[in-house]
Amino acid sequence: MLLQLAVDSLSIDEGLTLLDQIHPFIDIIEVGTPMIIESGLEPVRIFHQRYPNCLIMADVKIMDAGSYEAEKCFAAGANIVSVLGVSNDITISGVVDVAQKYKGQVLVDLINVQDFEQRVIELDRLGVDYLCVHTAYDVQPTGISPLDELQRLNFLECRAKSAVAGGVKLDMLPDIIAEGAHIVVVGGGIINHADPVDVARTMHRIIKGIS
Amino acid sequence: MLLQLAVDSLSIDEGLTLLDQIHPFIDIIEVGTPMIIESGLEPVRIFHQRYPNCLIMADVKIMDAGSYEAEKCFAAGANIVSVLGVSNDITISGVVDVAQKYKGQVLVDLINVQDFEQRVIELDRLGVDYLCVHTAYDVQPTGISPLDELQRLNFLECRAKSAVAGGVKLDMLPDIIAEGAHIVVVGGGIINHADPVDVARTMHRIIKGIS
Repeated sequence: MLLQLAVDSLSIDEGLTLLDQIHPFIDIIEVGTPMIIESGLEPVRIFHQRYPNCLIMADVKIMDAGSYEAEKCFAAGANIVSVLGVSNDITISGVVDVAQKYKGQVLVDLINVQDFEQRVIELDRLGVDYLCVHTAYDVQPTGISPLDELQRLNFLECRAKSAVAGGVKLDMLPDIIAEGAHIVVVGGGIINHADPVDVARTMHRIIKGIS
Repeated sequence: MLLQLAVDSLSIDEGLTLLDQIHPFIDIIEVGTPMIIESGLEPVRIFHQRYPNCLIMADVKIMDAGSYEAEKCFAAGANIVSVLGVSNDITISGVVDVAQKYKGQVLVDLINVQDFEQRVIELDRLGVDYLCVHTAYDVQPTGISPLDELQRLNFLECRAKSAVAGGVKLDMLPDIIAEGAHIVVVGGGIINHADPVDVARTMHRIIKGIS
């Protein structure tokens, strides 16, 4: 299992300060949507240069112009680019085509997908690399956890690998590991923790099975 | 009717060169999604300062963290912020709340919305300012025009005003004017035209009824 840190509520400098301390515990650095809205692809370029041990994920949540927008992200140094599961199949296929050109990967964000099972099967046929169940930030206060959807996703036995995001905290890791996912995305669970370095180290050890 | 120019396939400098010539013909300057992916909110700040005669629309296509992401856009000088109709109602309400704080406006992009009539009615109840039918860039080669959806939208007689986007060219303007819309969004129809200044002037005259 890979640990992905979503860096979204920090400035670039704050992100660098944190990542300088914890990047050895992180497999994938996600440049989150709010960070891209604020700063564009500059943090993708910076993190890509500074943390060669980590993959970089550009969480652009593409909804249209799939090949055009994906091209920008992969060219800037992203290894993984996100596209929305609620977008058109043509858009998703455009992202997949560009990913192959750059030997990059495509993560479909299943946030707010309706007819979950049917759409997941359709998306899997488009040749994406990851299907990511994602409890929206705005929905998390209602108490919903992404674990239920992860179980529904894994039950479908897709070709694409599973990823899980949305309010993941340290105490949820054992259940996620038991259920199985290739990527677990953590944001506030590390960034807003009283001791981000310690919790990142602990998550890393749990995920990698280091006792 | 207001003419909105979508600036998305240009660099900031290219956008400035074009806008310096045509901003008198434009009501709303849209900082398009690809431009935000590339440069963040910097073009919103620049265009807001340089073209005080125009409104600025940040086409961020919000999908989650509605209030958090909208706050960034309005604080940077956007007058209108876009949120996706396929997002959660809580997300859209978050954008509406922040817009009221800034005396800004919310445009819901209806791109790829399923159950169109039902969703439009739900969205209208959330107190948004504009409902925008939008034929995806990736879908335009199939020959679909946004005019059919504009008719379906107008038939519902929403409280929100209508907007129309997606492959609008000069020759489509009379039909759109006849159908009625508060905002017409043009991108490639001006930017990729052989004479962008002339076509922008012509569109402006047609829309404002200047003979």
